[in-house]
Amino acid sequence: MNPRVELINTGTELLLGSVVNTHLKFLAEALFPLGLRIERQVTVPDGAAIADALRETFGRTDIVLVTGGLGPTTDDLTRDVVAEMLGLEMIHDASVMTSIEERFIRRGLTIGDRVRLQALRPRESAVLRNEHGTAPGLHLSPKRLHSGVVSPHLFLLPGPPRELKPMFTDSVVPILRDLAPNGPFELKRNYRVAGLGESHVEELVGAELLALGLELGYCARPGEVDVRLIGSPDALDRAAGILLEKLGRHIVSSDERSLENVVIDLLANRSETLATAESCTGGHVADRLTNVPGASQVFIAGFVTYANESKTRELRVDPALIEKHGAVSSQVAAAMAHGALRVTEASHALATTGIAGPGGGSADKPVGTVYVALASKSGVAKVQRLQFPTDRETFKFLASQAALDLVRRSLAPEPAATARS
Amino acid sequence: MNPRVELINTGTELLLGSVVNTHLKFLAEALFPLGLRIERQVTVPDGAAIADALRETFGRTDIVLVTGGLGPTTDDLTRDVVAEMLGLEMIHDASVMTSIEERFIRRGLTIGDRVRLQALRPRESAVLRNEHGTAPGLHLSPKRLHSGVVSPHLFLLPGPPRELKPMFTDSVVPILRDLAPNGPFELKRNYRVAGLGESHVEELVGAELLALGLELGYCARPGEVDVRLIGSPDALDRAAGILLEKLGRHIVSSDERSLENVVIDLLANRSETLATAESCTGGHVADRLTNVPGASQVFIAGFVTYANESKTRELRVDPALIEKHGAVSSQVAAAMAHGALRVTEASHALATTGIAGPGGGSADKPVGTVYVALASKSGVAKVQRLQFPTDRETFKFLASQAALDLVRRSLAPEPAATARS
Repeated sequence: MNPRVELINTGTELLLGSVVNTHLKFLAEALFPLGLRIERQVTVPDGAAIADALRETFGRTDIVLVTGGLGPTTDDLTRDVVAEMLGLEMIHDASVMTSIEERFIRRGLTIGDRVRLQALRPRESAVLRNEHGTAPGLHLSPKRLHSGVVSPHLFLLPGPPRELKPMFTDSVVPILRDLAPNGPFELKRNYRVAGLGESHVEELVGAELLALGLELGYCARPGEVDVRLIGSPDALDRAAGILLEKLGRHIVSSDERSLENVVIDLLANRSETLATAESCTGGHVADRLTNVPGASQVFIAGFVTYANESKTRELRVDPALIEKHGAVSSQVAAAMAHGALRVTEASHALATTGIAGPGGGSADKPVGTVYVALASKSGVAKVQRLQFPTDRETFKFLASQAALDLVRRSLAPEPAATARS
Repeated sequence: MNPRVELINTGTELLLGSVVNTHLKFLAEALFPLGLRIERQVTVPDGAAIADALRETFGRTDIVLVTGGLGPTTDDLTRDVVAEMLGLEMIHDASVMTSIEERFIRRGLTIGDRVRLQALRPRESAVLRNEHGTAPGLHLSPKRLHSGVVSPHLFLLPGPPRELKPMFTDSVVPILRDLAPNGPFELKRNYRVAGLGESHVEELVGAELLALGLELGYCARPGEVDVRLIGSPDALDRAAGILLEKLGRHIVSSDERSLENVVIDLLANRSETLATAESCTGGHVADRLTNVPGASQVFIAGFVTYANESKTRELRVDPALIEKHGAVSSQVAAAMAHGALRVTEASHALATTGIAGPGGGSADKPVGTVYVALASKSGVAKVQRLQFPTDRETFKFLASQAALDLVRRSLAPEPAATARS
């Protein structure tokens, strides 16, 4: 079995909500390929609270990563707390002092007394070089304490991400690889699924995937669900067959690609182009498409026709059609898509029209109503009516999700296995 | 003294690094105005690990917020674990079941067996309505356990942010306000600043603000800096004068309004309209504007003219101009803005053209170059060249930020005090 790992983040700014903790994500993703997982993460304020958090980990885990509290200010206590817990004296490290001095000279700065404190470290600690800041990281190997408890491997790391990340990759990963010589027993694969709710996905595939002995997780976001599988390569291969059979075209990707990225790739592979004509999504479809590098090969033009006059002027939608059916109607959605197709001469054009709210709804078409339409040169035209009664930004996302998925499903090749959906 | 608060986040996806934890930031910022701070936050995997994390908090804290594990899948165990720890049986809640059924009927979905599990809750719990999902939140008041320990107030909240946020604001905040009747001893105010870097802002105002005895924090995001002040109402009033004098028109808002919201409000107050003509920002400016409720009164039409042909066709940009100066040039930016103004007859039109990367740069115009232009019926025209060498999505955000700030600064009235910048 590989060693158990825990993470302690120190930082009052994290607990005030001034900064989002990105260390957990970075470290978790760097650890997984080594066969290591973070089993628990805790955030404590700057100062002495680190002591309790550390003590809790002793005896139940093998490796503890600590971030923050290595700097020069009075609330940077991580080094001192660790020295006291392990019964180690603090020593002055001449080589650390030299590299701090070199760093300051290079920048033309003078060294204050507090900066010198960063050259102090607990005896028996090993220095992890900091190429991007003054405070070095430290590694302390397990030590039997008076209580009889053996302390875990402790890695004390700086708080700023641009200091932590290179230090972890360059200095910590090699040590961890020795501590977990078996490497990963398991692989991770993520299936992104659109058009089905979380509970529906689990009903379709949950039991069969669990029967393969896989670790299974679901992460639901607006308009999509991720199915996360961890297990042996063999079990993952068998899972792929089950997922393809049961979820079929609902599977957007199994390689972390977003829906917009899959749409761009599908079109690029066919050397086809896309235009957008958006009303209620207000440019969000175009925005998502143009987040994909290389989008310019595929996405040629977009219209945000918020006003009715703009639908007529830019997309040649007949004012009588708007008058008769309303701007939010399947007829106008289709006319917008056809108009964008004719004006831009793209291979496909996507249109959205709906009521984002909070105002503007009616009994017939309440807030949250949206029509998405796809027109293609090949002559195929599709319109869908959907209902997303939610806040304005989520509505825009869900409507853009439905629109992009309409393109994806029109272009994606039939899955090899039979899709039951 | 106000009650102590801890936060437990459950979610294997957080510990695998698949998702960044944004709950801590949201909850910390929502608690502060009540006089409450989160003293400790822990992340544990889905499943039974929540039990240990909860047990640790009993006896040392007054309020525990728990996120996640309320959904319909087999790893959603929060309800069951809490019921067992508090010695409460699970009961079926008919009114929760009714609202789940209504939700499914509204969406035209059928209800599976697993969904029904979400109507189970521990006896003695109070339901917190979920307007944006099926699983309700739950509140359990303190209870003396067999061990003699009194459990803290427990708030069980859903994991998805769009469900958690409104529930917290609507249902949890009123309860917490009763639990912390003294309210905040201090107030917090946030100034949003555009067009100045974090260290520059600190140089201009840091010393004077600290001299007022304020707790001072900076939060730098791409393209803007928030200056966070905590202190007495009197000190905050004096700070307002200093900030207005030193930062002047760089202050976007002091009431948490976003830049796009300020732009919409400025235009609405003048009964003026806006159109956009975007190349490199790919619809992101329109997308941000249309996130603001009521945007349709102001924002009449947008163009995403990614291809050169589209700039000529939709915006009447002379092909010879593109040939001579390149699509990424001040001349084409200005021509795009003027074209959008003429075509849509809006009061103002905003244009962007640049190189988002990763490909497409040259020695003269490297990746990250962007021109933003504003044309107005009043005849004023402004073009700015900027350089944002960064990743694609950040580039789009920074370019849209520059474009929107160009409108804001053109329309904002002179600040009352003299701006030195």
